[in-house]
Amino acid sequence: MEKLEDAIKKWLTANRTTGTLFLQRLVQERSIRGEESKAQAIIIEKLRQIGLQLDIWEIGSKELTSHPIFSSDRKEFRGNPNVVGIWKGAGNGRSMILNGHIDVVPEGDLDEWENDPYSGTIRDGKLYGRGATDMKGGTVSLLLAIEAIKNCGIKLKGDVIFQSVIEEESGGAGTLAAVLRGYKADGAIIPEPTNMKLFPKQQGSMWFRIKVKGRSAHGGTRYEGVSAIEKMIFLIKELQKLEMSRNLKVNDPLYEETPIPIPINIGKFYSGQWPSSVPDVAVIEGRMGVAPNETMENAEKEMEACLAKLAKKDLWFAENPPVIEWFGGRWQPGSLDTSHTLIQSVSRSFQKIKGTEPVIEASPWGTDGGILSSTGQTPVVVFGPGVTEAAHDINEYIVLDDVFEAAEVIALTLLDWCGVENKGGENHRRN
Amino acid sequence: MEKLEDAIKKWLTANRTTGTLFLQRLVQERSIRGEESKAQAIIIEKLRQIGLQLDIWEIGSKELTSHPIFSSDRKEFRGNPNVVGIWKGAGNGRSMILNGHIDVVPEGDLDEWENDPYSGTIRDGKLYGRGATDMKGGTVSLLLAIEAIKNCGIKLKGDVIFQSVIEEESGGAGTLAAVLRGYKADGAIIPEPTNMKLFPKQQGSMWFRIKVKGRSAHGGTRYEGVSAIEKMIFLIKELQKLEMSRNLKVNDPLYEETPIPIPINIGKFYSGQWPSSVPDVAVIEGRMGVAPNETMENAEKEMEACLAKLAKKDLWFAENPPVIEWFGGRWQPGSLDTSHTLIQSVSRSFQKIKGTEPVIEASPWGTDGGILSSTGQTPVVVFGPGVTEAAHDINEYIVLDDVFEAAEVIALTLLDWCGVENKGGENHRRN
Repeated sequence: MEKLEDAIKKWLTANRTTGTLFLQRLVQERSIRGEESKAQAIIIEKLRQIGLQLDIWEIGSKELTSHPIFSSDRKEFRGNPNVVGIWKGAGNGRSMILNGHIDVVPEGDLDEWENDPYSGTIRDGKLYGRGATDMKGGTVSLLLAIEAIKNCGIKLKGDVIFQSVIEEESGGAGTLAAVLRGYKADGAIIPEPTNMKLFPKQQGSMWFRIKVKGRSAHGGTRYEGVSAIEKMIFLIKELQKLEMSRNLKVNDPLYEETPIPIPINIGKFYSGQWPSSVPDVAVIEGRMGVAPNETMENAEKEMEACLAKLAKKDLWFAENPPVIEWFGGRWQPGSLDTSHTLIQSVSRSFQKIKGTEPVIEASPWGTDGGILSSTGQTPVVVFGPGVTEAAHDINEYIVLDDVFEAAEVIALTLLDWCGVENKGGENHRRN
Repeated sequence: MEKLEDAIKKWLTANRTTGTLFLQRLVQERSIRGEESKAQAIIIEKLRQIGLQLDIWEIGSKELTSHPIFSSDRKEFRGNPNVVGIWKGAGNGRSMILNGHIDVVPEGDLDEWENDPYSGTIRDGKLYGRGATDMKGGTVSLLLAIEAIKNCGIKLKGDVIFQSVIEEESGGAGTLAAVLRGYKADGAIIPEPTNMKLFPKQQGSMWFRIKVKGRSAHGGTRYEGVSAIEKMIFLIKELQKLEMSRNLKVNDPLYEETPIPIPINIGKFYSGQWPSSVPDVAVIEGRMGVAPNETMENAEKEMEACLAKLAKKDLWFAENPPVIEWFGGRWQPGSLDTSHTLIQSVSRSFQKIKGTEPVIEASPWGTDGGILSSTGQTPVVVFGPGVTEAAHDINEYIVLDDVFEAAEVIALTLLDWCGVENKGGENHRRN
């Protein structure tokens, strides 16, 4: 086995430039929601080159959109397919899903970026660009792992199912579609940016939109109106208290190092049409974290109860209750026992490469792992290169060393998990 | 003189339906910024019908846009003219400008309107619609006053200059253009909605835009970012304190009944692009009131000093100072002594119609009166039908009785101010 592992290390070292340029090319394609097709085309080209069996399809079937956990406000999925590449094993091995999402979040304030968000600039061992960390870097680790094994002439026993899905950032319709198409396995790795930690538990999360009324008036006599902005600020303070009380209840040791295990994030705030008018409507949109052992329904109820209590704290809210809508993204929570064989397998591979035990924590964000584990009945570990701080941030970047190290850990895990056919054989020559 | 006044009252009573339908038609034209032409066409038609000398021109000359108090972010003025109708007097009388603006503010939340904002619905003596109060009702009072006098066969000594201007809601470029075209007079009435009070003092005001930076991050680890929304909320609290300290300094007795003489209104708040991201930029837009005896520059300085002090209160602001921009609308403050003959003249007319002394207060908002008095050297009183509460609000309305009473007060003021040729004569027959 050590011979195989050495061969993989050598192949990854030898192919570092090619792999880096491939990641750069992938980052250079702006695959924000609804514009994923060109980046997917690059993936498809690579899968053909590796020689995997392709399954490319446009999601959006009735079965998908009527599924109880389907959640998306996207009207049109055509033209931006899900992509799966299958490497059938020789048999009698455990199967593994390797899942990455191709969609990236918007760029934020363009003026803040040092380089164009899609430059793919490489500097001091880092590759910059929207999606570098979340999660094209991780996806490239997956592809490098498969490529390395295949190019070392190794044949696995279990199936490897690589998935490049859309819609992760908006609630996971892409992965749900893959599950409904029949893709399940004995284990799954999702290389979201865990900074090489192992996350056996998935924080769930869901989007909300809260609308608050005011009463408009001329700004010069603003005391004759009621500012929806001021009322919304009042409401936000209450959400901050709710966040605090919910997090005080989290006692899972895996969250020990996490400042706010299940945050309530306000991502958008918009109100008003005219500087000289008192705004009559304010809207916020945000994301509520759901603990791995909590139901989505329970989290919803807590938020709704918090809003209902506003009526007692402010007369205006008694007469004008805020309206909440659970829209768009919903990521199911998920939980795998830390003693599961999948965690052990990845941990062993990690130990071999890094020489230390991996850090095992709970995921601070929702991933497609929730859907894969709940609906797909597939044990999931989230493990990948890149730091969470960089995800969704300006000047997003990934450390290239981590991409290749993650690829090596994943490759070794595949050898261990899926099993190797003719382990001692002569067929490990490079081809 | 009483005979003339009686004749005017009779004419206004007899023409109540026609006048009301004219106001309805004017309200039904949606004359928001950039779309004023159709409402102006209705005004032009009416001026032709009354028989005034027309002056119609598109504003935007170099002289205007390079003027020190010109303030507008509008790029295109073509197609939406200023309209002036001149009624030359017989001579030896005082001239009067009658100024109304044709532009209306946006509708706000359409769902909140009981009827379409441009329905012009009449119910229980009120006419509903965006602009009914601010200030098409007042403009119709002006036109009715002129029509009544002219139709009673009265010839005035002084000139009457009726103006229907654009851009009042965005900083007064329309009235500034009229001043620069040479329109000045011995007095001016602006029938903004004062609820039939007399406002000899103009609150000035100006728009501001404040941009605050945050640092984006994934919402699931929001503690790794800095929310621009939270920082903006902190900043707004400081603006509220500034508003309070500024208003404590206002000791003009005309502001005695005004809860907040010079408010700081936050009219817009926008931040963020994605529910699951920590927003990296937040922007507010608002309107800062300027006391009648204060300079715009002083008010600007106080706001800028308030923002500069944020650096001492919050380390983030020390490194990321908020950026303020004084954009768009600027309304000069103005002040006329309450003993001025113009105030006396309107007060006497008011007393005749209403049987009581008028309430004299300071204007809680900026009007074009600031430009007319400062740049145009024209004494201005703001007096008109409609209540401020309704202006810029949903379900904006005007009490029709007030429109006709204001018309009568203005007509009597014109007789008194401009003087009547052949006062006792036989030419007062209706024609």
